[in-house]
Amino acid sequence: MNRALTIAGLAVAATSLSGCIAVAAVPIAAAAGVVKTSQDSQSRKKKGKRQDQAQAPRPGQVFTTEDGKTVQVTSLTALPPPSGAPAATGTAASTAPAPAPGGVPPEMQFLYGSGEASALSLQAYAALWTYVHGELRFRRDKSMITSVVMTRDSTLTSPKFEACGKRPLAVVFDVDETVLLNLGFESDAARRGPGYDQGRWTRWEQTGADKVEAVPGAAETIAAIRGDGITVIYNSNRSASTAAFTIEALNKAGLGPVTLGDTLILRDDAAPSGKDERRWKIAERYCIVAMGGDQLGDFSDLFNTKDLSTPARRNTTGNTLIAPLWGHGWFILPNPVYGSGLKGGMDEVFPKDKQWADPAEEKK
Amino acid sequence: MNRALTIAGLAVAATSLSGCIAVAAVPIAAAAGVVKTSQDSQSRKKKGKRQDQAQAPRPGQVFTTEDGKTVQVTSLTALPPPSGAPAATGTAASTAPAPAPGGVPPEMQFLYGSGEASALSLQAYAALWTYVHGELRFRRDKSMITSVVMTRDSTLTSPKFEACGKRPLAVVFDVDETVLLNLGFESDAARRGPGYDQGRWTRWEQTGADKVEAVPGAAETIAAIRGDGITVIYNSNRSASTAAFTIEALNKAGLGPVTLGDTLILRDDAAPSGKDERRWKIAERYCIVAMGGDQLGDFSDLFNTKDLSTPARRNTTGNTLIAPLWGHGWFILPNPVYGSGLKGGMDEVFPKDKQWADPAEEKK
Repeated sequence: MNRALTIAGLAVAATSLSGCIAVAAVPIAAAAGVVKTSQDSQSRKKKGKRQDQAQAPRPGQVFTTEDGKTVQVTSLTALPPPSGAPAATGTAASTAPAPAPGGVPPEMQFLYGSGEASALSLQAYAALWTYVHGELRFRRDKSMITSVVMTRDSTLTSPKFEACGKRPLAVVFDVDETVLLNLGFESDAARRGPGYDQGRWTRWEQTGADKVEAVPGAAETIAAIRGDGITVIYNSNRSASTAAFTIEALNKAGLGPVTLGDTLILRDDAAPSGKDERRWKIAERYCIVAMGGDQLGDFSDLFNTKDLSTPARRNTTGNTLIAPLWGHGWFILPNPVYGSGLKGGMDEVFPKDKQWADPAEEKK
Repeated sequence: MNRALTIAGLAVAATSLSGCIAVAAVPIAAAAGVVKTSQDSQSRKKKGKRQDQAQAPRPGQVFTTEDGKTVQVTSLTALPPPSGAPAATGTAASTAPAPAPGGVPPEMQFLYGSGEASALSLQAYAALWTYVHGELRFRRDKSMITSVVMTRDSTLTSPKFEACGKRPLAVVFDVDETVLLNLGFESDAARRGPGYDQGRWTRWEQTGADKVEAVPGAAETIAAIRGDGITVIYNSNRSASTAAFTIEALNKAGLGPVTLGDTLILRDDAAPSGKDERRWKIAERYCIVAMGGDQLGDFSDLFNTKDLSTPARRNTTGNTLIAPLWGHGWFILPNPVYGSGLKGGMDEVFPKDKQWADPAEEKK
């Protein structure tokens, strides 16, 4: 792999109360101006040699730039991590996957490492079991049961549902971070830092079957649902072309058995990521009495329409007729690590009228 | 405020698939070697002038260091944010609170901005209401009800609970990120980047009463519980010395009314952060039929004993007699933003036998 050492950039050191300038990364995009291609960097090396007379910057050396700013070369040999702990050496940092400079990001510590997230998952599956077993199974007249899948003519403000008639009962689950924790993939992502690569995910689907675990509560609840004579169906955006590996992963995590095309519905490489069409297809054959997912798109594609702002998307979950579904037919699992919920700038995440600034610093 | 421009350091640009070198921050600690005091930097300016003959590094300029490495000055004027979006200018980055370079961190986007987190909260409160209203209220013989507070002689592996006798029913909630979203404080924290300051939190308690919102589902559920004739009690680590402001915040969020010392229990400045003693005191007067919190410490201090490793702490929630409590007496709310669950390095968060590395890069 071709490498080039570069001075990462000029940063402003401020003696501020915050004790920290900023969290920052150096994506290849930003570095592109420095390292474009192997050739490019070769030519630089030559150029560098020709300039050997010119003194290379040494730690501690001070310059004044053309616009009169004082500039000093630090002794840092790599960008220090957020923790302020010693940074990896240039060499170590350049071997991929490099250790995540700040260790494991908080959202991963929460989802994969905390008892709090485990408890949230156990609680969600307990609610699902109470609902499916306690509220539905005892019913003699199954035809009185209503599907929890929104019909084609539904909107988020007027959701519609159909009676099931004589179709057999089923519970539909998403797979990733709903019933399956992708520990292997995320351990690799933690080492490497921000940035998603579809090719890497595909390689994960193909080689990671033994590096997963069931979400706390999932395997027990799914076995119990099957014990009630209710069919468990997985509706996932994993690729149909890697079905064999996904089946292996589900089996190893104690979430199987599944039958491809019947109880395991995957995404054809041409198909859209939206799940409504697949849900409606399942609903033609089964009475879907409960759904479990970690993304709003696991319940309806309507949550992911482009015209829906981040605050509006959040509000629809609580301020519409959809609100009563959470915990009664729709069951959501925690996932702060990735997904369509992770978006929004300051004014979208924090309503303007709820933003605050430390008065001790406003006074300055 | 005194400032000095410094070359942040040497970073290795790798043309790797990951598309990103590393996430890094420049804490004042790391910058200390560069900017110590105003005097220090003055002397540097002089020194700099004396060296004006020496050419200052210009963007694009290439050097070869003494150890033969090729180094080039980038055109970056600040550390780029994780998103790769344009970095704040030196001036902007140096004014505190500085905008968080990557915008809002993912765990905050999730908790405060996503419909997924809103749905998780609504689901938790729905489960709490189903449990309290459906499973307890109808009981004629209240003396048969058991407290959900672990007794003094309990351990995590053998939790013990007592029958309530004739005490009146109560539900005990934590406050922050359980019934109240601290939108104002976290918006300030997002701008400022990592780092917690107790003084800032105290100023927040004193001035932020109108910059909060109720957790989705909390206000409605709490009102309904009171409507059932069950007492709602808040057990919080907020300071007793700022009680008036906390009461104002609860009222403005629709979570009141409360009576200090009876239905609002705060932490005396001398008191420990552990909540067991306060829980046991409440349990002497009330039959605590349900508890709500965002931290395991809101249910028992035993989860926070030092000898409990991160994996062991997580496992106790699902692999002990405590597991059945989630959703049946103990109700947990999502919080990936802060708290005792956010800890653990690679091998604690990701079991060694579940770690994975992209085979495409291992081959290199």
